[in-house]
Amino acid sequence: MTIKISIDCMGGDHGPSVTIPAALSFLNSEPEAELILVGLQDDVRAELKKHKADSHPRLSILHASEVVTMDDPIEIALRRKKDSSMRVAIELVKDGKAQACVSAGNTGALMAVSRYVLKTMAGVDRPAICSILPNQKNGPTYMLDLGANVDCEPHHLHQFAIMGSVLVSAMEGIKRPTIGLLNVGTEEIKGNEVVKATAKLLREDHERGSLNFFGNVEGNDIFKGTTDIVVCDGFVGNVTLKAVEGLGRFVKGALTTEFKRTPLTMLAALLGKGALKKFSNTFNPSRYNGASLLGLRGLVFKSHGGADAYSYEWAIKRAFDAAKYNVQEQLSAMITELMPRTPDPEVPGITHS
Amino acid sequence: MTIKISIDCMGGDHGPSVTIPAALSFLNSEPEAELILVGLQDDVRAELKKHKADSHPRLSILHASEVVTMDDPIEIALRRKKDSSMRVAIELVKDGKAQACVSAGNTGALMAVSRYVLKTMAGVDRPAICSILPNQKNGPTYMLDLGANVDCEPHHLHQFAIMGSVLVSAMEGIKRPTIGLLNVGTEEIKGNEVVKATAKLLREDHERGSLNFFGNVEGNDIFKGTTDIVVCDGFVGNVTLKAVEGLGRFVKGALTTEFKRTPLTMLAALLGKGALKKFSNTFNPSRYNGASLLGLRGLVFKSHGGADAYSYEWAIKRAFDAAKYNVQEQLSAMITELMPRTPDPEVPGITHS
Repeated sequence: MTIKISIDCMGGDHGPSVTIPAALSFLNSEPEAELILVGLQDDVRAELKKHKADSHPRLSILHASEVVTMDDPIEIALRRKKDSSMRVAIELVKDGKAQACVSAGNTGALMAVSRYVLKTMAGVDRPAICSILPNQKNGPTYMLDLGANVDCEPHHLHQFAIMGSVLVSAMEGIKRPTIGLLNVGTEEIKGNEVVKATAKLLREDHERGSLNFFGNVEGNDIFKGTTDIVVCDGFVGNVTLKAVEGLGRFVKGALTTEFKRTPLTMLAALLGKGALKKFSNTFNPSRYNGASLLGLRGLVFKSHGGADAYSYEWAIKRAFDAAKYNVQEQLSAMITELMPRTPDPEVPGITHS
Repeated sequence: MTIKISIDCMGGDHGPSVTIPAALSFLNSEPEAELILVGLQDDVRAELKKHKADSHPRLSILHASEVVTMDDPIEIALRRKKDSSMRVAIELVKDGKAQACVSAGNTGALMAVSRYVLKTMAGVDRPAICSILPNQKNGPTYMLDLGANVDCEPHHLHQFAIMGSVLVSAMEGIKRPTIGLLNVGTEEIKGNEVVKATAKLLREDHERGSLNFFGNVEGNDIFKGTTDIVVCDGFVGNVTLKAVEGLGRFVKGALTTEFKRTPLTMLAALLGKGALKKFSNTFNPSRYNGASLLGLRGLVFKSHGGADAYSYEWAIKRAFDAAKYNVQEQLSAMITELMPRTPDPEVPGITHS
């Protein structure tokens, strides 16, 4: 069975020079994939030509006359650039012509356009961004929300947990993935009011067997791999993700500096090349590229803006896998099952206080 | 001039076996320091004996019959153990017999007992925990709050900024340290409601010249060293700090594993020993041990619970420096100067909405 993925070829810092070689490489490795390259057709064709791939039976080009830049405010992406490659790529998902879309465009614009074009799933109040981080168990830790929602109420975090659980279950083949609620301590009494009320909702789900709630986790549990999923609001998630990325760059820079300092350390680096490479692979963000925009009526994956072709290919792979494993259908089913728990907006309850 | 520091010798995972050698080493390196060792006197004396330091002209012992353990709930530390080494050490500060206190005891108990014994400074609503992190400019980034306050309003964050500014100015000799407000983006429109309202308060202070507000910063700016101080609520700060500590341990573990894998990589590690050591020193948390509990009527410093003697000595040094540079007096003066800006509790304003 063929799975069609639409690619926003113009998105990201590098545009076609990254997205197209990534698309070609992915096509070659995945015989079930069919890709629709969306963008300025001359640019797309020129890049294809460079790679001697003018025609490919599982590749098509769809022209889009505009480009959402990395600096474009959401307003511009949403209201002015109606024929942007980003928007057209998402519309293909809406129209059922692609099963998922990949873009390296700016996150705010991508989320806004996706919400506008695809709409939010029934039962979901707010879509969330879910990404993966490496952990000491050599597996991925899925974390959400990473920045779509800076002010969250308990029922939002509760929905993030449900969506994360479905995603991990489908993508990793884990039947009952464990959910951790990011907090300042593991004890039940710890945390702010929103987190405490969220834990209550998750414990109820756990008791009835619909979710596998581990309990509170702390910042270091992300890398310990204590749980498959770490749930937090978008403010905390975004700050934490950027902080660890910042530390990662700092570490890499310092290691490079120290090993280049003297002839002896350079020799050591040469001899230890394999070790250093394996070490750096452990933390290689490329392997973890491809964040999911969860809770929309269609699959959208976001690549890092600065991704190279290798890294971008991972984002395509993740979009492909999500389509292949029916993440969207599973999400709908699970949200529907747990739907009655969404608070009635007419009845002010604890979650609205 | 002699500066007296009280040491809670029983606190932390290791008690006197760490705190006492650290104290002795610090005494030898700092002729102006006088230390009061507080704890179970038999244990303290036995440890001193081990180091052949039964008597020292600048060392005294004060017996305290109880110990706050790392697992003791706040209630126990506060209401049951009234003769704990932690409490007695803090009381010495209250009574003016020590200018600062150091403890590696559990953070929640230390903050609660400190607040109870010393009380909060006039003009400060809530004390905060301020720690330092290394940055790429080879300097320290001061960050607060790191966990004392999980639900914050704008005027709390505003006070954290003032306290951070005074601390950095005194400790680092920077006249107008830059203050960054931790956020999900640098633009003014970014962030949740609390952060946006805080930025407004800080911009007003900046305009009148009382604080040097840089603006919003993101998670990665902590390690870039974009600003001298990073302000956030205790929930975000605690989660972020633990996440970066977790990544740090993960990195260290992975590096060790890779370099121990084969004879060749072990040789590389041997040749690159100096480089690896310098690399690890850059991120050595020991150098950054000693968080300040700011906003109390007295100086209290918190060491990591698991600190070794070398690391604990840094915490003593930080407490000593804070006393030497009159951090407490400067804090009082600055808070008083900016006091009228604290919202009147009887008039609900934007900061209480």
